[in-house]
Amino acid sequence: MKTPLRVGLIGYGFMGRAHSNAYAKVNHFFDLEHQVVLKAVCARDDAKVKDFAARWGYESTETDWRKLIAREDIDVIDIATPNNTHAEIALAAAKAGKMILCEKPLSMTGPEGKKMVAAVEKAGVANMVWYNYRRVPAVTLAKQLIDEGRLGRIFHYRAKFLQDWTINPELPQGGAGLWRLDVKSAGSGVTGDLLAHCIDTAVWLNGSIAGVSAMTETFVKERKHNLSGKVEKVGIDDACAFLARFQNGSLATFESTRYARGHKALYTFEINGENASISWDLHDLHRLQYFDHRDQGTTRGWRSIHVSDGDHPYMKNWWVPGLQIGYEHSFVHQVADFIRGVETGKPAGPTFRDALETQMVCDAVLKSGKSRKWEKVGK
Amino acid sequence: MKTPLRVGLIGYGFMGRAHSNAYAKVNHFFDLEHQVVLKAVCARDDAKVKDFAARWGYESTETDWRKLIAREDIDVIDIATPNNTHAEIALAAAKAGKMILCEKPLSMTGPEGKKMVAAVEKAGVANMVWYNYRRVPAVTLAKQLIDEGRLGRIFHYRAKFLQDWTINPELPQGGAGLWRLDVKSAGSGVTGDLLAHCIDTAVWLNGSIAGVSAMTETFVKERKHNLSGKVEKVGIDDACAFLARFQNGSLATFESTRYARGHKALYTFEINGENASISWDLHDLHRLQYFDHRDQGTTRGWRSIHVSDGDHPYMKNWWVPGLQIGYEHSFVHQVADFIRGVETGKPAGPTFRDALETQMVCDAVLKSGKSRKWEKVGK
Amino acid sequence: MKTPLRVGLIGYGFMGRAHSNAYAKVNHFFDLEHQVVLKAVCARDDAKVKDFAARWGYESTETDWRKLIAREDIDVIDIATPNNTHAEIALAAAKAGKMILCEKPLSMTGPEGKKMVAAVEKAGVANMVWYNYRRVPAVTLAKQLIDEGRLGRIFHYRAKFLQDWTINPELPQGGAGLWRLDVKSAGSGVTGDLLAHCIDTAVWLNGSIAGVSAMTETFVKERKHNLSGKVEKVGIDDACAFLARFQNGSLATFESTRYARGHKALYTFEINGENASISWDLHDLHRLQYFDHRDQGTTRGWRSIHVSDGDHPYMKNWWVPGLQIGYEHSFVHQVADFIRGVETGKPAGPTFRDALETQMVCDAVLKSGKSRKWEKVGK
Amino acid sequence: MKTPLRVGLIGYGFMGRAHSNAYAKVNHFFDLEHQVVLKAVCARDDAKVKDFAARWGYESTETDWRKLIAREDIDVIDIATPNNTHAEIALAAAKAGKMILCEKPLSMTGPEGKKMVAAVEKAGVANMVWYNYRRVPAVTLAKQLIDEGRLGRIFHYRAKFLQDWTINPELPQGGAGLWRLDVKSAGSGVTGDLLAHCIDTAVWLNGSIAGVSAMTETFVKERKHNLSGKVEKVGIDDACAFLARFQNGSLATFESTRYARGHKALYTFEINGENASISWDLHDLHRLQYFDHRDQGTTRGWRSIHVSDGDHPYMKNWWVPGLQIGYEHSFVHQVADFIRGVETGKPAGPTFRDALETQMVCDAVLKSGKSRKWEKVGK
Repeated sequence: MKTPLRVGLIGYGFMGRAHSNAYAKVNHFFDLEHQVVLKAVCARDDAKVKDFAARWGYESTETDWRKLIAREDIDVIDIATPNNTHAEIALAAAKAGKMILCEKPLSMTGPEGKKMVAAVEKAGVANMVWYNYRRVPAVTLAKQLIDEGRLGRIFHYRAKFLQDWTINPELPQGGAGLWRLDVKSAGSGVTGDLLAHCIDTAVWLNGSIAGVSAMTETFVKERKHNLSGKVEKVGIDDACAFLARFQNGSLATFESTRYARGHKALYTFEINGENASISWDLHDLHRLQYFDHRDQGTTRGWRSIHVSDGDHPYMKNWWVPGLQIGYEHSFVHQVADFIRGVETGKPAGPTFRDALETQMVCDAVLKSGKSRKWEKVGK
Repeated sequence: MKTPLRVGLIGYGFMGRAHSNAYAKVNHFFDLEHQVVLKAVCARDDAKVKDFAARWGYESTETDWRKLIAREDIDVIDIATPNNTHAEIALAAAKAGKMILCEKPLSMTGPEGKKMVAAVEKAGVANMVWYNYRRVPAVTLAKQLIDEGRLGRIFHYRAKFLQDWTINPELPQGGAGLWRLDVKSAGSGVTGDLLAHCIDTAVWLNGSIAGVSAMTETFVKERKHNLSGKVEKVGIDDACAFLARFQNGSLATFESTRYARGHKALYTFEINGENASISWDLHDLHRLQYFDHRDQGTTRGWRSIHVSDGDHPYMKNWWVPGLQIGYEHSFVHQVADFIRGVETGKPAGPTFRDALETQMVCDAVLKSGKSRKWEKVGK
Repeated sequence: MKTPLRVGLIGYGFMGRAHSNAYAKVNHFFDLEHQVVLKAVCARDDAKVKDFAARWGYESTETDWRKLIAREDIDVIDIATPNNTHAEIALAAAKAGKMILCEKPLSMTGPEGKKMVAAVEKAGVANMVWYNYRRVPAVTLAKQLIDEGRLGRIFHYRAKFLQDWTINPELPQGGAGLWRLDVKSAGSGVTGDLLAHCIDTAVWLNGSIAGVSAMTETFVKERKHNLSGKVEKVGIDDACAFLARFQNGSLATFESTRYARGHKALYTFEINGENASISWDLHDLHRLQYFDHRDQGTTRGWRSIHVSDGDHPYMKNWWVPGLQIGYEHSFVHQVADFIRGVETGKPAGPTFRDALETQMVCDAVLKSGKSRKWEKVGK
Repeated sequence: MKTPLRVGLIGYGFMGRAHSNAYAKVNHFFDLEHQVVLKAVCARDDAKVKDFAARWGYESTETDWRKLIAREDIDVIDIATPNNTHAEIALAAAKAGKMILCEKPLSMTGPEGKKMVAAVEKAGVANMVWYNYRRVPAVTLAKQLIDEGRLGRIFHYRAKFLQDWTINPELPQGGAGLWRLDVKSAGSGVTGDLLAHCIDTAVWLNGSIAGVSAMTETFVKERKHNLSGKVEKVGIDDACAFLARFQNGSLATFESTRYARGHKALYTFEINGENASISWDLHDLHRLQYFDHRDQGTTRGWRSIHVSDGDHPYMKNWWVPGLQIGYEHSFVHQVADFIRGVETGKPAGPTFRDALETQMVCDAVLKSGKSRKWEKVGK
C-alpha cells in the first residue's frame, strides 16, 4: 500500500493546470512508494476554483491560502501564483512545516529569495522550484554527457528564449493571463520569466556565472492595464540580452525577447567544449544535437539524437522507442524526482537554494541593464 | 452533472496503457457531456490485471472477457488484445449492445472484418478503430488543408513506416510484447502493423486505393518462438513495399520495414498536388511541412509549420503556443472525438467500416506480394 | 610541360555549358599531367556556335560533327547532344579513334547501347558517360563508407528524383530546351532523364538490379510541339515509380516525376544496412546523413556530415573546411578522374559498359510499366 | 569586341586563388562589356608566383608590388595580401590611378582606413572591398526583402561566425597560411577576420551601429611562432562577443570564435522584424529561412527557400532551378557587379568608404573589450 502524498495547490492558471496534470499522471507511469492525492486547490474565486477541482479531481477547495496551509491533511503546498506572492506564501508554508513546490522564478528579487531559502532550510522541509526544462529528456541527457566529461573544457555557452506574442501594441497588460506583463505582479519581464529558465539550465550544466553585461529594452512603452482600465507605462523588460562569464572561464551570450517573429517559445542552448558540442531547442524538444570530435574524421557530423529510446532519461517510463512525449512530461518527471528525493533523503534539484542563484544572476542582469556596466553576480 | 461513460478495457499491454491514459486525461482537457469512468479492466492473469487496475484506477477487474461483456455497468468495450482475438470479442460485444473501440488493425483479414462491420451496424452500436495518427494535430491539419482544396489535383502520395527493432536475428517471436512477430497472433507483419496506419491515413486524405503491386520479404527466416521455446519459421513479412493507384488517378509508393537502421518509428508521408505539397513524419510529429506554389515567387519555400498554435487542431485544449504534445495525445483526441460523436450523433471515424477499407487494401497487398502481379482492392 | 588534351565538344546547351566549365576549371584546381585545351565546339547554328566559342574560349568551331570527328587536332569527342544522336556520333568517334565523353543516358535503348559499348571496346578508346552525381563529394563519401563495409549487409535502397517543372499543361514539348519532353529526341521521359541517374548511383553503390515492377504515367496527355507548332500526343513518361530487387537481396523503391510541387531537382537516396544507414539529397548536396548503430547507445543519431573537410573526397582541391562547392564541381571532378584514368591506365567509371547496365534497367522499367508485371533486367 | 579589364593581383594565397577563379569565370557566365584579362600576378617568391601564373593563366609575374603598380598595362590592382600591407599598397595604387579591389578587412585600424578612403576618393578610382558574403544569392535576397519592407520595423539582429580550427594548442601562429593568428600581420583575431564579415552584412542590411559592449578572450595564451621559431604570446582575440545597438533602435548580439567544436565556417544571422523574420547560415548557403506573419494563420511557418530559382539573385546566370552553386560564386558575382559599376557609373558596394564603417565598429569592439564599457562607434 502506497503512502499518500497530499497536495494543496494554490493557483489554477497555466501552471496550476500543468502541475495538476503532473500529479494526476505520475503514479500511472512511475513506480513510487507514495501515491499523490489531489487534496485541495485554492484560489480566490470560489465558483471557478470549484470548477477546477471538479475537472481535475481535487477533493476539496479553499479560497484563502492561509487556511489551506493551516490544514492538517495537506503534506505539500504547491505555489502556482504570480511572482509577487511566492515569498509570503512560502514563508507561511515553511513555518507550518509543509513541503513546498514553488513555481519559478523563486522570488521577485534576490534578497526576497534569501528569506525564502532561510525559511525552508530552517524548517527542514522538502522544497523545489519548478524549473521544469531540466527534465526534458534531451536536456537531462545533455547533463549526463557533460557530467561524463564528454565535452571536456567548455569554451562557450549560448542560450536564447524567443517569443513573439507581445509585438502587437494593442495587447494589454495585467490581470488574468497577462500578469506576466505587469511589473508589479511579475517583478521583471523576459528576465524573470524566460531568461530565468535559461540561467537555471546554464548554471546546472556549466556552473556558476561570475559577471554579466546586459542590455534591456521595452519596445512598447505604454499599454492599457486590464485592472485599472487605463493606459499605463510598461514597467517590464520586453527584451534582454547579456554577455556573461562563467566561473570556469567560458564565455556566454544570453538573449530573450517577446519580439521575435516566428518563434513561440524557442528556448535554445548550445555548448561548445574542447571535445564535443551540444545544442537543443524547445520547439523540437526530443532532439539533442551532439557533435563529437573524437568520431572518425570523414564521418564526423552533428548527430541528431532522437531522445526517445529506452535508455534515454525517463523514456522507459513512457511508450516505445521513437514515440514522443511533450512539454507536460517535464513536470511529471519533476514530481517523480521530488518524491524520490523525499523517499531517499537525497533532495532533487532545483531546491530553493539552487533557484536563489538564478535569482542573483537575474538581479545582476537587471542592474547591468541600467548601469550599462559589467556587474558581478552577488552571493 | 456529466453522464458517466463506463469503460471496460480488455488487454493491458502497450495499447492498454495508451488507451487508459487517454481515458484518464480526456476530461481534464476537453469539455464533454460525458465523464469517462474506468470501470473494469480484463486480462487472463489475475494478479497482473489487479496491479494494472490499481495503477490506473480501474474500479474492478475481470479475467474472462465474456464476463466483462455481460456486465450491465459497462457502456464501452475497448479491445486492446492481439489481432487474432478482435473479431470474436467484437462480435460478442456488438451482440451485447456495447459501444466498441477496437485496436487496429480491425481484423486478421478482410472477410473477417466484414463480419465485424455487419455486426456493429446490425447492432447499431457506436464503433471506432484506434488508427490514432489521424489525430496528431499536424496530420489533422493536413486533412483540413486538403479538404479546403489547397493542394488542388493530387498527383503523388508516398508513405513509409520504418523501424529497426528486428534486425537482430536473436530476437525471438511470440508471446508477451512479441506477438506482433508471430503470424498466428498478428496475421501479418509490417503490413497489418505499420502499413495499415499508412493506408488508413492515405485513404482518409486522398480517397480509395484501386490497385497495388507489392513486394514482401522476411529477412530472418527463423526465430525462436517464446511460447514453444523452439526455433520456428517466421511467418510474417519483415518488410513490404508496394506501388498503388488511387481512384483519383494519383500514383503512390508505400513501404514499411523493421530493418531500417536509424529509424525507430518513422512514419512519414508526402503528398504532391498541383498547387501545393505536404509532408509529415512521426519522429517530429509537431511539424507539418507545407509548400504552396501560390506564394510570391522569390519567397516560395517549404514552410515548417510548428503545429502548436491555438488555432491548430486540438491545440487550444492543451498548453500555450510553441509547447509540444506527444504521441499519447492522439489517443486523447480520439476519445474526445468518439464521445462527441456519441453526443452529437455524428460518429467520428475511423469506424469499423472505414477500417475495413484498410483491411481490404492490406489483403490486396499481401496477395500481390505472393502473386507478383497487380491486384485490385476488393470491395 | 603538360601534355595537351584537345577537346571537341558537340552541343552547346545546358550540358555543353556544364562540360565547358569543367574543362576550363580542371587544371586550376587539380594537378594533372594533361592540360585541357578547348579546341573546337560544334553545333548546327554557325552564329550561335561562334558566340559560344568566344564566350568559353574554344579555339575554333564546326557546324558538322562529322568534320569535327575527322579533325586530327582533336583527342576527345564530347557528346552533349540530345539522346537520339548519341549512338551515331559515338560509333563514328570510336571508329576515328577518339576518346569519348558521352552525356547520359548512354543511348535510346539497351540494344543501341550495346552497339556503342562494342564500338568503343573494339576501338580501345577511353570512354565515359556523364553520370556526374557519383562525384558530388558526399556521394563519393557514401561509396567509400559502403566499400569499407560500414553498412554491413544492405537491406533497403530508396531513390527519388522529383521535379515540378511540367505541371503547367501550357508548357510545350520539343525543340531547344524542351527536347527532353519529346519522345523522339529523348526516348523516354523521367526514366531516361532522371531515374537513369538514380539507377547509375544505385548500381554503383549496391550492385546489380535483378528485376523490377514499374508504374508509369503521363499526366498531361497532349502538348503543343514547338517544332511542328501543333498539339501532339505526349509520348514520354511524366512520372515513373518502380519496385526493385538487387542481386544482393536488398529491396528497393525508385520514383521520379516532374509533378512534385516544391521540388526542383530533388534527387535523394537512402540506404539501410545492418550496421549503418546513409541518406543524401541533391538540394543540400554537401550533407551526407549517416547513422551508425555502433555508436554508444544514448548518443546514437543521424550525423549530418558537412562534407567539406580536407579529408573528404575532392575537397582538398577547393577552398577551406566549411566552404561549399556546387553542382558544377561534380563535372570538374569527373574530368579530373577521366584524365587520371587516361594517365594511369585505370579507366574511371562510369564507362560505356557501366552505363549500359543502367540502360538495361531503364528498358526493364519501361517494359514493366506496360506489361504490369515484374520484369527481369536483361544482360 | 569587349573592352579588356587588365588585372594585376598581389598575393596568391587562399584569397588570391578565390579572386583568380572569379576573374577566370566571370565572362563565361555574365554578359559584360569588359573582358577580364589576367595580366599579372605579384608575390615575393619568384618560382612560386610563376607556378601560380601558369596554373591560372596570368600573362606575367612580378615580385615587387611597386613595379606592378607602375605598369601601364594594368587597370585594376587586387590586394590579396595580409592586412598589415593593405594601406601602403592601396595608397600607392590610388596615386597611380588604378582601380582597386582590396581584400577585407580594409585596414588594420579605423584611422588607417580613413587614409585609404581619402586616397581613393581623391584619386577618383573605382574601389571595392571583398566582403563577398553580400553576394551569396540567399543573402542578396535577404537584402531585397528588407528593402521591399517585408520585415517592417526591425527589433533584433543576431550574427555569429563560429569556427573550431585553433582549439589545438599545438597549432603555431604566423607565416604562410597562419598569418591570421599573428597580431602583427592581422591586427586582430576573430574581430577583423570573421566579425568584420558579420558587421559588413549587418550594416548593409540594417543600417549603422551606434554602440557596443564587448567581451574578448584568448584561450590559448602562447603559441609557437612560425617565423621566429619561438613560443610567443598570442596577441589576437580567439573569441569575441558583443552586444550592439543599431541606430534604428534594434538590439543585436554578435559572436565569433575559433573554439566552437563542430563548426568550420558557420556564419549565421537572424533578423526579427515586426512582420517577418529571416535567417541564414553559410554551411547551407543556398537556403534562406523566411517567416512571414502575414501568411494565413494555420499555415504560418519558417519557409526554407532554396535560393536556386531563375528569379533569385544571380541564379539565372548559372544552371537550372534546384542546382546549387557554392562559396566561390560570391566572388564571381562581386567581380561582375564591380564591372557593371564601372560600366554604369554606379559603383557597387562595399566601397572603401562602406568598409571603413565596418572598421570603425571593429575598433569600438576591441576598445570595449578592453574598457569593459559600452563604446560608441566613431565616425
